[in-house]
Amino acid sequence: MMRASINTATLGFQAPIREVIDEVARAGFAGLAPWRREVEGADVRAIAKHIRDAGLTVTGYCRSTYIPAASRAQFLNHVEDNRRAIRDAGILGAACFVMVVGGLPEGSRDLEAARAQVAEATGLLMETAREAGTTIALEPLHPFYAADRSCLNTLKQALDMAEAIEPEARLLGICADVYHIWWDPERTAQIARAGSANRLFAFHLCDWLRETRDPLNDRGMMGDGVIDLGRISGEISAAGFTGLPEVEIFSSLDWWKRPMAETLAICKQRLAPLV
Amino acid sequence: MMRASINTATLGFQAPIREVIDEVARAGFAGLAPWRREVEGADVRAIAKHIRDAGLTVTGYCRSTYIPAASRAQFLNHVEDNRRAIRDAGILGAACFVMVVGGLPEGSRDLEAARAQVAEATGLLMETAREAGTTIALEPLHPFYAADRSCLNTLKQALDMAEAIEPEARLLGICADVYHIWWDPERTAQIARAGSANRLFAFHLCDWLRETRDPLNDRGMMGDGVIDLGRISGEISAAGFTGLPEVEIFSSLDWWKRPMAETLAICKQRLAPLV
Repeated sequence: MMRASINTATLGFQAPIREVIDEVARAGFAGLAPWRREVEGADVRAIAKHIRDAGLTVTGYCRSTYIPAASRAQFLNHVEDNRRAIRDAGILGAACFVMVVGGLPEGSRDLEAARAQVAEATGLLMETAREAGTTIALEPLHPFYAADRSCLNTLKQALDMAEAIEPEARLLGICADVYHIWWDPERTAQIARAGSANRLFAFHLCDWLRETRDPLNDRGMMGDGVIDLGRISGEISAAGFTGLPEVEIFSSLDWWKRPMAETLAICKQRLAPLV
Repeated sequence: MMRASINTATLGFQAPIREVIDEVARAGFAGLAPWRREVEGADVRAIAKHIRDAGLTVTGYCRSTYIPAASRAQFLNHVEDNRRAIRDAGILGAACFVMVVGGLPEGSRDLEAARAQVAEATGLLMETAREAGTTIALEPLHPFYAADRSCLNTLKQALDMAEAIEPEARLLGICADVYHIWWDPERTAQIARAGSANRLFAFHLCDWLRETRDPLNDRGMMGDGVIDLGRISGEISAAGFTGLPEVEIFSSLDWWKRPMAETLAICKQRLAPLV
């Protein structure tokens, strides 16, 4: 059994979730992280049972509806959408609900306002997370996505926000994804801070290709890029993270075209020195 | 006369530097910033005279040879290359020599080592800048470029480095380019810090297109993107910057295809509310 988890996006959504679960279990991984597109509209309890029966842990549930909105009504719709997803995260037994928070509302240039909306929404969602028996992980995304996908862009910013919303640090933490944080001069210090504050809820692995052809869907397999994964994994361990590292590779240009079993086998090889 | 400068890259290098100088002056700008590709191998003193005769200030000279190298000999070659360029910056009367520092050497995953090389090289170049009668501006580049173009990625990091190298703050500062810093939660504080430390040497303008098709050469014209340029310009003014804002738009997909006079006219319109 490999002490690692597979984010189902890594496999390109080629098959129904039940087949994906079976493939991941067969390949010998200890966990997986499903996406809402695979779960919503289906029998969530049955999927949860299928995952448990396969012997898999759910390291996270992906992901939030983007928060920032041009109108108050739309903002509240986004919050409600996330409430429903958080309840599903609870049913799935997910270690956390992963918040990819969204960027600027169409037509806006006000990053501060977008960030304030994210903080407010997260505050509103805490009670839902408690009731659902799960946690919320704020995932800072690479600054490349600040306009259209996430106005939360560094670990420090995510941790500052988490501390302000829930000082007691029980249900609100962060997700550290190497793709988003590898370049950050503050990374080492902020990972340590997340650990000592009990806010390190998830750790995602992939690689950054030196020649990135598409900033969204050209992530690399571990070892094929420039990220010092051994070093960052060491920082995560030193911070006291005891969860399963999760492989999340968006790769429409390469890995999503391969059979799931092949991708899983190569993930396993590349993870071996890291877990 | 418009109190702004045109970085010649904005015009796509369509014409020899003398024609570019004349176009920029004719359009009524107060300054320009040339590139080494337009200057090296030519009569630098004659170009400098042409710029002066046209009544233009030189807001910066672009740009450094990338520093980080796989071998010590190569590193020292890069330093020497930059020495030559800094002497030309002095002859041109440039307000600063712009350092785009380079990313990871091919085959390396060690960002810390690359950053240490940049700090060492910058230290070695200070005496050359003093002799040449110019200054050095470290330009942090957007984290998207950390692998291949710049391991210096935030204002804070650049200012920390500048303070360590030259505590007295006479010849070493930073270049603040909206494209690289607009997303940074620490931006406002670090611009203020740069100003009060007397290290704010250059300010570059363009815009970030919500749908960026190419992270290198799809920069937007001011007003066409999502950056709150009024706000950032205000921060720069409040920090005491008295130089000319400089327009630098890399746009192989759009602006570089237009006649220089058209691009300059639109720059002028869009700058009007900002300068």
